[in-house]
Amino acid sequence: MIIERREFLTKLTLAGAAAFVSNSPLLASVTPKKDKLGIALVGLGYYSTDLLAPALQLTEKCYLAGIVTGTPTKAETWKKKYNIPEKNIYNYQNFDSIKDNPDIDIVYVVLPPSMHREFVVRAAKAGKHVFCEKPMAPTVADCEAMISACKSNNVKLAIGYRCQHDPNIQAVIQVAKDQKFGKVKMITSAAGYVDGRTNHWKQNKKLGGGVMGDMGVYALQGARLATGEEPISVIAQASTTRPEIYKEVEETMMFMLEFPSGARAACHTSFGINMNHLQVNYEKGWLKLEPQSGYSGNKGSMSDGTVINFPIKSQQAKQMDEDCTALMNNTALIAPGEEGLRDIRVVEAIYKSVATGKSVKI
Amino acid sequence: MIIERREFLTKLTLAGAAAFVSNSPLLASVTPKKDKLGIALVGLGYYSTDLLAPALQLTEKCYLAGIVTGTPTKAETWKKKYNIPEKNIYNYQNFDSIKDNPDIDIVYVVLPPSMHREFVVRAAKAGKHVFCEKPMAPTVADCEAMISACKSNNVKLAIGYRCQHDPNIQAVIQVAKDQKFGKVKMITSAAGYVDGRTNHWKQNKKLGGGVMGDMGVYALQGARLATGEEPISVIAQASTTRPEIYKEVEETMMFMLEFPSGARAACHTSFGINMNHLQVNYEKGWLKLEPQSGYSGNKGSMSDGTVINFPIKSQQAKQMDEDCTALMNNTALIAPGEEGLRDIRVVEAIYKSVATGKSVKI
Repeated sequence: MIIERREFLTKLTLAGAAAFVSNSPLLASVTPKKDKLGIALVGLGYYSTDLLAPALQLTEKCYLAGIVTGTPTKAETWKKKYNIPEKNIYNYQNFDSIKDNPDIDIVYVVLPPSMHREFVVRAAKAGKHVFCEKPMAPTVADCEAMISACKSNNVKLAIGYRCQHDPNIQAVIQVAKDQKFGKVKMITSAAGYVDGRTNHWKQNKKLGGGVMGDMGVYALQGARLATGEEPISVIAQASTTRPEIYKEVEETMMFMLEFPSGARAACHTSFGINMNHLQVNYEKGWLKLEPQSGYSGNKGSMSDGTVINFPIKSQQAKQMDEDCTALMNNTALIAPGEEGLRDIRVVEAIYKSVATGKSVKI
Repeated sequence: MIIERREFLTKLTLAGAAAFVSNSPLLASVTPKKDKLGIALVGLGYYSTDLLAPALQLTEKCYLAGIVTGTPTKAETWKKKYNIPEKNIYNYQNFDSIKDNPDIDIVYVVLPPSMHREFVVRAAKAGKHVFCEKPMAPTVADCEAMISACKSNNVKLAIGYRCQHDPNIQAVIQVAKDQKFGKVKMITSAAGYVDGRTNHWKQNKKLGGGVMGDMGVYALQGARLATGEEPISVIAQASTTRPEIYKEVEETMMFMLEFPSGARAACHTSFGINMNHLQVNYEKGWLKLEPQSGYSGNKGSMSDGTVINFPIKSQQAKQMDEDCTALMNNTALIAPGEEGLRDIRVVEAIYKSVATGKSVKI
């Protein structure tokens, strides 16, 4: 269902805006009280085109207000398809002038990972809240710079971890919190698909490619969320079965994590294997999800007979609506920049383990 | 159902025996043609008591003919319970005189792993065929000596891999053979249980303890049988959450295998975690088993809807009957000594990886 963007409501309630600003010292003062926040997507690749833009037709707290693209033909197509005003269309050069555009409350960075830092920092400097796709960035230093830029510019940063907004994944998190089956003992977590493309940024090291950041963070999140802990050591192995395509980055990554409680996880991710499953063995039971990071609904079961199969229309719509609600109410984001950083800290250790062939403390 | 052992038939058909011997140069000449072969169990611990002896009441090709034990009270109990003649009861000192006992065709070694080599070699020298429990022995050198002793004494050696006789596991093997779903890409294989005992040989290094040999070979077999290949490298991590009990050996072992085809496996085994599952992701589908090494039936499913749930009354009875049939007909054993050696070769590499903290070529 495509909703005409003209239908969006951007009523500026001056009294409300004043109250909002005064109660919300952390929020950028440029954000007025609106019923729907305006989002500008930066980078119009597959994920923006096929997932985020359609999701933005379903959202109740935000809408597709603008785009930022380096490709004029894409700008033209999107402009027509989503009826985007010319003044809300930017390229990478004039992007910084977005600071003067009151239609845009949030900049959603959907570029290849190596470009995240630059555009998150530029968006923050423009006084816009930022949504940033996973993986947050190639390095811990990048992530820290992004978090810092958002803080010093008084804007919020959310990472696009759609799964953390999925009630099926939240069920896994809750089991860890409640210790429903006692302590977590062992996890197997897999996330992969066969990527048939041969010249994509995911295969390009400079652009932040490699399966670890792309699908690997899902396998990692499976383990982190199921334990509710941060891993303290990792040993990893990278490999490829298609060296002609995966020349610069790994096609497959396997890694074993150790958690403070003694829980262990065997995780694997690949651009050459269709797999997507999570199994958690607790002291007194188990939980299984398959898929664990699917777009169209994760599902599973627990050893006590509990079925995990909450319906969800669009993870991305729920994610953006919930993040916008948090921005509007100045409440905690489900997956702030710090959460993205936690993953990248492990990802960095994984690459270090691959380089040294040894276990790495985190 | 307990069958009186007096019912067993040991008809010696002289003509048949002559034909059998002449056609079977590899079989020990002491084995006459019998309807049921006589088995002597060496070591009367839990597995002999609770699994093998009951299974030997169900077997059609063999029966419990004798016992070898270091504990006179156990000898007395078994003698009464199974009506075993005094002349078929041995201790570890007089065991070698079993060579003169025509009732005993097969010696089944069910001792702690470090004792396997000695008793397999002594049984072979006594001219008896040998069944040996898994893990075959602590080292590759032990396994090779055992295989060699059996060869030079013209007797056969079978390893007690009951699961390889289970049609549910055979279904997994068959999928690999037929390449039903194309090549194997990724395997996760887990086998563990919570062992509450605190002073058992499984916790004793000298006796061949450690989870890797005991439950780990099931996780390893899951990967080896699902690929139909031998791993070429492994990286492993040993750990324990109960150092007061697991002082000498590992409680948990995690290991990642690489196979010649490019298939990879993440395996884990533990005396502190209840888990038992196998997942195979192929090019064009998947297979799951849970449990994968249970005593009372392994079961699972495949991506094409195939259900894996063959009924099996007793894995151990089927194993012994099939191994006895192979001995009687001088055909290939399902799991000969060489199969046990294949696992121990990997187990040795796993311990080397733990010691060095690095990947080890196999």
